[in-house]
Amino acid sequence: MDKKLENTALKNINIEDGFWKRYIDLVDHVILPFQWDLINDNVEGAEKSYCIRNFRIACGLEEGKHQGMVFQDTDVAKWLEAVSFSIEKKPNAKLESFADSAIDLIAGAQCEDGYLNTYYTITGNPRWSNLFEGHELYTAGHMIEAAVAYYKATGKDKFLKVMCKFADYMYEVFGSEEGRNHGYPGHPEVELALVKLYRVTGNEKYLQLSNYFVRSRGAEPCYFLNEDCVKNQNYIFSEFKDFKLDYNQSHLPIAEQITAEGHAVRAVYLYSAMADLASEYQDEKLLAQCEALWDNITKKRMYITGSIGSASYGERFTTDYDLPNDTNYSESCATVGLAMFSNRMFQITRDGKYTDVVEQALYNTLLAGIALDGKHFFYVNPLEVVPEVAENNPTMRHVMTTRQLWFGVACCPPNIARTLASIGDYAFSIDKNGIFINLFLSGTMNAELAGGKAELELKANYPESGRISIGVKTQHQNQEFTIAIRKPSYSNEFTVKVNGREIEFELKKGYIYLTRIWNDHDEVILDLDVSFRFVRCNPRVRENIGKVTIMRGPWVYCLEEADNGKYLSSVKVDSSKPIIEKADSKLLGGCLCAEVEGVKIRYGSEGDELYYTKAPEYENATFKAIPYCMWNNRGKGEMLVWMNEK
Amino acid sequence: MDKKLENTALKNINIEDGFWKRYIDLVDHVILPFQWDLINDNVEGAEKSYCIRNFRIACGLEEGKHQGMVFQDTDVAKWLEAVSFSIEKKPNAKLESFADSAIDLIAGAQCEDGYLNTYYTITGNPRWSNLFEGHELYTAGHMIEAAVAYYKATGKDKFLKVMCKFADYMYEVFGSEEGRNHGYPGHPEVELALVKLYRVTGNEKYLQLSNYFVRSRGAEPCYFLNEDCVKNQNYIFSEFKDFKLDYNQSHLPIAEQITAEGHAVRAVYLYSAMADLASEYQDEKLLAQCEALWDNITKKRMYITGSIGSASYGERFTTDYDLPNDTNYSESCATVGLAMFSNRMFQITRDGKYTDVVEQALYNTLLAGIALDGKHFFYVNPLEVVPEVAENNPTMRHVMTTRQLWFGVACCPPNIARTLASIGDYAFSIDKNGIFINLFLSGTMNAELAGGKAELELKANYPESGRISIGVKTQHQNQEFTIAIRKPSYSNEFTVKVNGREIEFELKKGYIYLTRIWNDHDEVILDLDVSFRFVRCNPRVRENIGKVTIMRGPWVYCLEEADNGKYLSSVKVDSSKPIIEKADSKLLGGCLCAEVEGVKIRYGSEGDELYYTKAPEYENATFKAIPYCMWNNRGKGEMLVWMNEK
Repeated sequence: MDKKLENTALKNINIEDGFWKRYIDLVDHVILPFQWDLINDNVEGAEKSYCIRNFRIACGLEEGKHQGMVFQDTDVAKWLEAVSFSIEKKPNAKLESFADSAIDLIAGAQCEDGYLNTYYTITGNPRWSNLFEGHELYTAGHMIEAAVAYYKATGKDKFLKVMCKFADYMYEVFGSEEGRNHGYPGHPEVELALVKLYRVTGNEKYLQLSNYFVRSRGAEPCYFLNEDCVKNQNYIFSEFKDFKLDYNQSHLPIAEQITAEGHAVRAVYLYSAMADLASEYQDEKLLAQCEALWDNITKKRMYITGSIGSASYGERFTTDYDLPNDTNYSESCATVGLAMFSNRMFQITRDGKYTDVVEQALYNTLLAGIALDGKHFFYVNPLEVVPEVAENNPTMRHVMTTRQLWFGVACCPPNIARTLASIGDYAFSIDKNGIFINLFLSGTMNAELAGGKAELELKANYPESGRISIGVKTQHQNQEFTIAIRKPSYSNEFTVKVNGREIEFELKKGYIYLTRIWNDHDEVILDLDVSFRFVRCNPRVRENIGKVTIMRGPWVYCLEEADNGKYLSSVKVDSSKPIIEKADSKLLGGCLCAEVEGVKIRYGSEGDELYYTKAPEYENATFKAIPYCMWNNRGKGEMLVWMNEK
Repeated sequence: MDKKLENTALKNINIEDGFWKRYIDLVDHVILPFQWDLINDNVEGAEKSYCIRNFRIACGLEEGKHQGMVFQDTDVAKWLEAVSFSIEKKPNAKLESFADSAIDLIAGAQCEDGYLNTYYTITGNPRWSNLFEGHELYTAGHMIEAAVAYYKATGKDKFLKVMCKFADYMYEVFGSEEGRNHGYPGHPEVELALVKLYRVTGNEKYLQLSNYFVRSRGAEPCYFLNEDCVKNQNYIFSEFKDFKLDYNQSHLPIAEQITAEGHAVRAVYLYSAMADLASEYQDEKLLAQCEALWDNITKKRMYITGSIGSASYGERFTTDYDLPNDTNYSESCATVGLAMFSNRMFQITRDGKYTDVVEQALYNTLLAGIALDGKHFFYVNPLEVVPEVAENNPTMRHVMTTRQLWFGVACCPPNIARTLASIGDYAFSIDKNGIFINLFLSGTMNAELAGGKAELELKANYPESGRISIGVKTQHQNQEFTIAIRKPSYSNEFTVKVNGREIEFELKKGYIYLTRIWNDHDEVILDLDVSFRFVRCNPRVRENIGKVTIMRGPWVYCLEEADNGKYLSSVKVDSSKPIIEKADSKLLGGCLCAEVEGVKIRYGSEGDELYYTKAPEYENATFKAIPYCMWNNRGKGEMLVWMNEK
């Protein structure tokens, strides 16, 4: 196993990309201040979150009951993590002071022995009594991630110390040794967080605890079967009574799990930790298992928009090739988790198939999760919506027809925010000899390489244009290192030039390796083929038989009612005709539309009866598609990704 | 309003139809004895029903708790009703002695004041405290229906008296007068039962009580909002917390309800009672409202198989033109209710559009609900099933991939049985001047008409053949009366001959009226066009755009995996080619198959990736379709009604 690639510090990356900057600026200027108000219950019209209030009660600063979900603390954690990423890139005294005040409350809510969780502290329910549903370890995990991020961003270690103390306590509580608690998280998350804590502190206990949690998972007899909630059918969440152990990936000993099962977020968080452990322990077998799981997801259980979770009930994977477009869950958080897992697998294997999926997830579902105003969010991301049906057929009661301000379970908005704030971690990876360019975002990045510092300046308008220009600045003359640029698998044709001349290069696992002596002001130009293309689905997916969609680079396109009228299911596109580019600078803040020819049913003469022998009449029409990530920014309406093919 | 048509007594009808007799014989010889064992908990491997045991406890013959659902008594009632229908046609001492023993228990379980319900009697929960969910009035309704049927079948009045005493008591309890309970049933059923009780006893109180229940429904403020279960969110059925008042048709004053909403079974039971009351009170406005509701169902919310209920959650109607084929509920009981409602509307209006739907419901979904062995049942009747998906995607967790022996909520099996046992009520109607032939079942029927007795002998092999021969026997020479024969709307071409000669007739609202002087041995021959046809769906139903199905007479056909392999969604049939008849005497006890030409995707070269640009390869193929009502009698496999059209 090669030494894994690393992230460079976020402060070394400055994203100035035209497309992404609007989202990233929204995080800094709109989302994070707005979320601070939300977790403080200062937003009129939004459901109360009780997040900060719970901490104040746990600190003894207020009287009251715990309110919100058992995992309500994680909203504060995810907000803190996103703030950390944001201020690491660009200091912001106001956000930092908000964060410090939240951290003071967190520290104040910690028990003497290190335990920290407002729900269990305030209610007095016995600790670790309901690992299946109680989310204590999940919550701890998000807190640890936030603490690590805040330490990296600011150098301040108060929060980190709080979480180390909690982790030290957990290390004493859990383990396979006699007398310890043999449990593990109902919702994986702490496993990957403990690896982060180990990496920043060097304390191996944290790695060992993560390893224990992962490796003991699913050992027979399953730990959860002896918890009160399962034994006595005494659930916090009533639907859990219907869930089998595969719901949280404890149905089989971990080493035997080779298909992605159960709750999608839980699954990809767990697999991310497995990838971390495979790398830390140089465990080839575990890595192969991670690859098998990743292959199962991306070759059999993933939507073209990079989302996962084919069913709402259980928010879960179902079976191979089962990808319904309108009843699916496709949670924004699951897409975040898939990007996390894929990025880890890339950093270990340097295989571009993983970063292709990172890009697919981020350019489609992640951004579809957030409105262009930065204040409205989707949890659920179907590929086909008919509002009248979604609002009246309870099979789709999880589907919202417009983005919501904030939800009772507010996992997705802060998860989207922290991912946007740390997009640099996905865009670049480094090792001592070079820089890997994974995403084509305009901006600059610096890296400290073995031979000296290097700075890259990317200029791109991707995926509207396939031209990626990379300006090189070196610390010394004649500095040797590698620039490895992802060659997306969709782009069969491409050219690479250095200083205007085609050069020799190695193409390996989807990366173009330019290993050479670099000098200041060298310029690399990569031209990818991002022309519009019709894409079809493997016909084992029954929902998409006879259908086609439009893509440009990683962007999946969709039809919206605003552009194409109602009854999008009656559209048949003519894939023998070219897809025409139509740039519309006024639409949605600037949008490259796709125009296609086809036919659509002429409504009006279909009559009142439901069933008859006559065939419908079709008429010629031109259809306009927009990137899926921008849908639903013009009010409620039909939307369709997979169109019938003429 | 014309005087409504009547049913003739079931003892006057003898069904000898080749197709239906196997089901009817199953009821007499298999289902009713089997269900007796089931309600007595004498069937190994079946879930316990506790039905009879609950009555024994309520009688004081056993000690114990009530077990089963709150409406568990109705299984006994529906069984008794079906037994009544069966023994009315063909005496059966054994079944009658079983029934008498059950009736003794029912009488023994009745309280001094007339109240009768094992759940409330055994638990001691306060009577009428939870009309929203408690099913007391619903249960009373099924008991009344059974008592009326048993009295008609045997002339014994013990059970009838028990139920009259209960109805007398309810008449004192409920009503709009001050001091009475202003409630009405959460689940309509007692309303139509009380009309039956009125018709058999002539006691107008029962009609008045029914009228009160129907007319007070939905009056503001809604009665249910003040019940403990709603006010304090203290539900028997946890999902009820999510249900709005439209779930049980109490969202609007009854007179304002013109679209079919909510739980499908509740809806059509209610509408059946509304039709009864429209007729009894000669209320043209109420009748027009019934017609509007019926039109809304059959023109916008009904599956081609005559089933209703587009969503599983709430087992309910959703919105116009929303007819998903794989996630629907389409409960067998709802089809029974639709046939009941439609038959009532026909008897009032003499309009064949209603009996067309009766036929559509009975020939497709009703029979699909029961296996050819008579011992296995479907509650849920989708039009498309892929077993691997239905078993692994919890969106379809209500869908069974094989028929079940008996369910926890055993409403459908006895409902199917009682409908089969009383099929004669649907097949014929009479008034004093004539006989209406609604269904084309071989057999004989007798009627006492104004001018004397008449007997008809039908010979048919419908819908395999379109020839219906009707032999006439008259009591006197030159007896004038009308034979009105339904002309199904699908059959545009037809001929009618009397004694071999084409004759004059009136065609009115889908019925061929033959009003003439009849003599013994006259013979009518009706030739309908039952040739196979391709049928399409109104394109406002997005699920069926570009699709086609095959019908023959009322039969809807489907493809099964057993005949056509997997991946039925990849079939495209060529509707320009003729549909070939293939009679197969060995298949499923004799089956007229339909053979169609088309193409299907050639699987094997589709590759491992999920998304790519290449189009799938199709190959020519011949497909074999069987009647939908016979599906799933050869083990688990894919099934598809709506096929893509080439």
